[in-house]
Amino acid sequence: MSSFYGQNIKISIFGQSHSEAIGVVVDGLPAGFRVDFDNLREFMQRRAPGRNEYSTKRREEDAPEFLSGLDNGMTCGAPLCAVIRNGDTRSADYGKLRDIPRPGHADYTAHVKYGGHNDIRGGGHFSGRMTAPLCVAGGICLQILEQQGIEIAAHIQSIGDIADAAFDPVNIGEEDLRAVKTAEFPVILSESGAKMRKAIEDARRDGDSLGGVIECAVIGVPAGLGEPMFDGVENRVAQIVFGIPAVKGIEFGGGFASARLRGSENNDAFYIADGNVKTRTNNHGGILGGITSGMPVIFRAAIKPTPSIAQEQDSVNLADMANAKLTISGRHDPCIVPRAVPCIEAAAAIAIADMMVWSV
Amino acid sequence: MSSFYGQNIKISIFGQSHSEAIGVVVDGLPAGFRVDFDNLREFMQRRAPGRNEYSTKRREEDAPEFLSGLDNGMTCGAPLCAVIRNGDTRSADYGKLRDIPRPGHADYTAHVKYGGHNDIRGGGHFSGRMTAPLCVAGGICLQILEQQGIEIAAHIQSIGDIADAAFDPVNIGEEDLRAVKTAEFPVILSESGAKMRKAIEDARRDGDSLGGVIECAVIGVPAGLGEPMFDGVENRVAQIVFGIPAVKGIEFGGGFASARLRGSENNDAFYIADGNVKTRTNNHGGILGGITSGMPVIFRAAIKPTPSIAQEQDSVNLADMANAKLTISGRHDPCIVPRAVPCIEAAAAIAIADMMVWSV
Amino acid sequence: MSSFYGQNIKISIFGQSHSEAIGVVVDGLPAGFRVDFDNLREFMQRRAPGRNEYSTKRREEDAPEFLSGLDNGMTCGAPLCAVIRNGDTRSADYGKLRDIPRPGHADYTAHVKYGGHNDIRGGGHFSGRMTAPLCVAGGICLQILEQQGIEIAAHIQSIGDIADAAFDPVNIGEEDLRAVKTAEFPVILSESGAKMRKAIEDARRDGDSLGGVIECAVIGVPAGLGEPMFDGVENRVAQIVFGIPAVKGIEFGGGFASARLRGSENNDAFYIADGNVKTRTNNHGGILGGITSGMPVIFRAAIKPTPSIAQEQDSVNLADMANAKLTISGRHDPCIVPRAVPCIEAAAAIAIADMMVWSV
Amino acid sequence: MSSFYGQNIKISIFGQSHSEAIGVVVDGLPAGFRVDFDNLREFMQRRAPGRNEYSTKRREEDAPEFLSGLDNGMTCGAPLCAVIRNGDTRSADYGKLRDIPRPGHADYTAHVKYGGHNDIRGGGHFSGRMTAPLCVAGGICLQILEQQGIEIAAHIQSIGDIADAAFDPVNIGEEDLRAVKTAEFPVILSESGAKMRKAIEDARRDGDSLGGVIECAVIGVPAGLGEPMFDGVENRVAQIVFGIPAVKGIEFGGGFASARLRGSENNDAFYIADGNVKTRTNNHGGILGGITSGMPVIFRAAIKPTPSIAQEQDSVNLADMANAKLTISGRHDPCIVPRAVPCIEAAAAIAIADMMVWSV
Repeated sequence: MSSFYGQNIKISIFGQSHSEAIGVVVDGLPAGFRVDFDNLREFMQRRAPGRNEYSTKRREEDAPEFLSGLDNGMTCGAPLCAVIRNGDTRSADYGKLRDIPRPGHADYTAHVKYGGHNDIRGGGHFSGRMTAPLCVAGGICLQILEQQGIEIAAHIQSIGDIADAAFDPVNIGEEDLRAVKTAEFPVILSESGAKMRKAIEDARRDGDSLGGVIECAVIGVPAGLGEPMFDGVENRVAQIVFGIPAVKGIEFGGGFASARLRGSENNDAFYIADGNVKTRTNNHGGILGGITSGMPVIFRAAIKPTPSIAQEQDSVNLADMANAKLTISGRHDPCIVPRAVPCIEAAAAIAIADMMVWSV
Repeated sequence: MSSFYGQNIKISIFGQSHSEAIGVVVDGLPAGFRVDFDNLREFMQRRAPGRNEYSTKRREEDAPEFLSGLDNGMTCGAPLCAVIRNGDTRSADYGKLRDIPRPGHADYTAHVKYGGHNDIRGGGHFSGRMTAPLCVAGGICLQILEQQGIEIAAHIQSIGDIADAAFDPVNIGEEDLRAVKTAEFPVILSESGAKMRKAIEDARRDGDSLGGVIECAVIGVPAGLGEPMFDGVENRVAQIVFGIPAVKGIEFGGGFASARLRGSENNDAFYIADGNVKTRTNNHGGILGGITSGMPVIFRAAIKPTPSIAQEQDSVNLADMANAKLTISGRHDPCIVPRAVPCIEAAAAIAIADMMVWSV
Repeated sequence: MSSFYGQNIKISIFGQSHSEAIGVVVDGLPAGFRVDFDNLREFMQRRAPGRNEYSTKRREEDAPEFLSGLDNGMTCGAPLCAVIRNGDTRSADYGKLRDIPRPGHADYTAHVKYGGHNDIRGGGHFSGRMTAPLCVAGGICLQILEQQGIEIAAHIQSIGDIADAAFDPVNIGEEDLRAVKTAEFPVILSESGAKMRKAIEDARRDGDSLGGVIECAVIGVPAGLGEPMFDGVENRVAQIVFGIPAVKGIEFGGGFASARLRGSENNDAFYIADGNVKTRTNNHGGILGGITSGMPVIFRAAIKPTPSIAQEQDSVNLADMANAKLTISGRHDPCIVPRAVPCIEAAAAIAIADMMVWSV
Repeated sequence: MSSFYGQNIKISIFGQSHSEAIGVVVDGLPAGFRVDFDNLREFMQRRAPGRNEYSTKRREEDAPEFLSGLDNGMTCGAPLCAVIRNGDTRSADYGKLRDIPRPGHADYTAHVKYGGHNDIRGGGHFSGRMTAPLCVAGGICLQILEQQGIEIAAHIQSIGDIADAAFDPVNIGEEDLRAVKTAEFPVILSESGAKMRKAIEDARRDGDSLGGVIECAVIGVPAGLGEPMFDGVENRVAQIVFGIPAVKGIEFGGGFASARLRGSENNDAFYIADGNVKTRTNNHGGILGGITSGMPVIFRAAIKPTPSIAQEQDSVNLADMANAKLTISGRHDPCIVPRAVPCIEAAAAIAIADMMVWSV
């Protein structure tokens, strides 16, 4: 259990922040698909740190090496394995962190679970770095889905108190998705983006951090995907999205806002358009009874503020079980929300691809 | 796939609203546990319809019959099966619904998925009635967990615009949980409850319905439960909670509100109390890196308003693919949130019990 | 874990020999299939006890009641549940068996596993009676496969030292399968059958029992089913076949005999016939690399002699941990091999159906 | 599905014979275990080719590189990943094999399954080379089990017609296991070994190959492991053992021989020895009802003769769908049975470790 996900397309993620490498195995990809490595690199770049002013300066070369699963650049039916070397594997000065867990991190819970044997360096297997292999797997799934006419994109819906516009859940089109995917800062309204960047810069100056909400849309999904009860689209997407560190909530369609509506407001009326069944509104987020309706799948994930902040914090020393002060050194993203956007897309792509039937 | 859940304690839910019976198989319960059938009946009663003015008048006798898994009233290691007979199995006047899907229901998506062969009567397998067997399984898990010192309770946090108080995420105690579990209407503040009931009554009068939010707390959970990435407590709880019809969102700890905070506000400082590690606040909802911290596990689920409303609605006729009007007859709950409260508790209990190690 | 099997078509078997009922849940059957209940009853009859001289006289009405999964006699996409009531649920004189485990039975191992809380009556969940629900699930899968042109049948290859002829692994046809399925005693050579019956009668007279080998063939399987390594046809069939009590071995194609051959003898030469790739021999049993070749799938299962014999046996008394003598009372099959034949067919059908892609 | 196995200790095997590398991810290993790398290297050496006269001369450096899962040489709770580089990744002269499948290999079935996109070089993912990562995972599990007092060893029970002695299923001890594990040629009787080697040499001279049977014993297993029906020890061991290429049969305890016995001969009488329940014989192979009895677990696997032989063989040309002749070039093991011995031990170790409860 744990770092395995999927039923038809199975993934297995491995690695720690400072181990030799991190990576992913993807089993069950349809054979004969030609991976577009340039496209994948561009996708990975959206997650990469250090590419602009609001993310950590630490340089990281996240180019995956493909060890298996390809023959002449095409998937061959065998499990695909991609690894990314960790540049920095020094064990340096982590002694202190082993004893003094960082608030908001998994340091303490991992310590309990693994009897103190967990790899503490950089958060070990709980590091946000684990989303790089997730993006390798998801980036390939995105390409495969695109070939089937399914497009996925996400944008920052809010950072702190600053909100972006929302996707139009009914009429969202490919151009809308492409616009946020190619934006330097993934928002719909550039003025919102400017305010968000400033807020992030302010947080950095204060030695603090910010969280936010990411909204994701999947268009072109055929009706009929997903299984009732525990293997519906909501269940399966939620299971993988909570695998991204810092996600603390998820909602589909109207979500928490629907809980405030009356049925007459929330129900999405059906109608016929060009011989197809559609809904006039999309509070159901493209999912009814766990099964896709053919309308855009819309969901939002809440990202908590990065727990690594420069300010001194209250913690405990596990060695002597006494209260202690902790100051985290090193550079840290004051806001990981922008970099989490492609991770959310990757997770959605894996979940959707896993639910599709890839014929023998 | 679909109506199966779990890894150590596996459940399999079956039945349709109007089939001969509905039920559940539970495999992996620890052997030698004496089920308290009175307690289970009381628990089931909290979900049962028709017990007061705000729920459907249709009488339903949901007493489960135990077909297996017990010997002299104790679990014996064999899979437990409980069935609940459906009183009403007439196929009556469902012809219309087969052609005209109800907005907000799974009628249309099930039609597509099963090629029109789905059991349309009362929503078939997508009926809220499927939560009765979930409550049988969950009710037994609740008893087993209680024996281990783990208590679970939920309350209505809001209905429409009316809010209840929230659980104190740090200091919540057994009495707090017992209070909402034994309340006639599961809220913390009785004045909020009174307003909620009135709002439900108003909605009924208008031929309309209401949604709401349920908050659930789990106390006494040992630190160290849950696995990293895809099998963490959040992932596993979310997977089962989205199996309850009408749930459209879930958040843990601070959830979506945390996304608005700065790290310095959201991080929960550790401290030592009586030789144990605790946190002064509980924005992490008892879960860090997917693993329990020993603090109360807190989550909230958004329940959309019941889609079955008395008002005429716009829909389509699938037989001739034309727009159509639909008026749903019969009595329906104007708000299923109160009855969903024990279902959320049941789901949480199954998820937590599934993650614990039951020694050979 | 335990009594759950399957990935696309999932089954969950429940019940004990003397609990209220036994049964099965089958999830994932394609919707819109009309179950032939007469055919299913006939299939179940082949497993039923008491229908002739060589099986136990205890009468058992194994007619399944279908609680869910059907609408107008057709599968509707919802999980199907079938239950079979146990006529005899008295707890009578099992006190002795609780303390003195029967050699060759699971009494002792279940005692250890479940801390003495296992249901000892009639073997509890370990009873051969659990194959009745397996046959309900398998009988339906057989019908579904037949509609796809896939036929499955098994025969007794040997009982004790008496051998039947083997299926022709290359040219076996539908008539060959139908012949053994409709035979009163499932053998190819009636003279072998006569000798086997006499041997069984002799064993009964001696208060003893006999084992045997069952050979099963699946024809019409398309090439390309099964997954590499751990989810190949051999792995998946073996996993379910060992779920039938008393099975102690399984081999595919040449099996153990192939281990004595040279490669030049064992390799099956390919050739083209009518535009299709075939093999001239079939030592591979229709499976190469875990994947079907399109040739008949052939496997054999070894069934140990029924452990319940009339003779006094050496055992132990678990209450005082001392050696003890045991005499098992009641009537018991001196040979369950004939009744196990349809169980093997059922298991094979479930495994094969589970590996096929049932389009959305 | 496919190259994933396990429930508590999950493995995921990747790679092709001529891809960049092969490897394995192992998730769920107990944390804090210090891996003995020398011991692991020695274990891997037993599988390695080219170490003596009866195996292929092709040199292969199978030293695994550990990318993750360790911290200071100890398991840290994170998934462990080990990769083995493939020395020879040339695509050279495989064009012919793509069109003309090798009899007895997965070339043809993989061609059908993957629409001709499978990696044909050296058998791709179906190569026997995939057992190297299996041995990495199994070698570590063997060490962990040994720490718990559980020992596993296998020997060649037969090659062609030449038989070794069998393990004493009742009294087998650690020394017996150690003897075959350290033997240059893994047999109990050295004179049998000498005859086997000669037979292998003869087969090589004839451009032919030989199969055989491997017997494996697990001692020190506590009673109570395994689950009823589909997750018993037999089911789980069979599922993984059939993942080793060339295995065509498996039997536990008396196996197929038990099918010839009467119940009075096959039943294993219980008795008390030193306060423990034991059996005087061990036809049940340490497993009753799928659950371990505490007696040695004994099983045998049938290995078909290596399909790659030097003689010209009949095949087909898939490009023009005509009959064709095939001569396989290159050096090939005339008998892979000796090298399969540690693979069987590895598979057994993974299956047993997976069934144990590793406390949080």
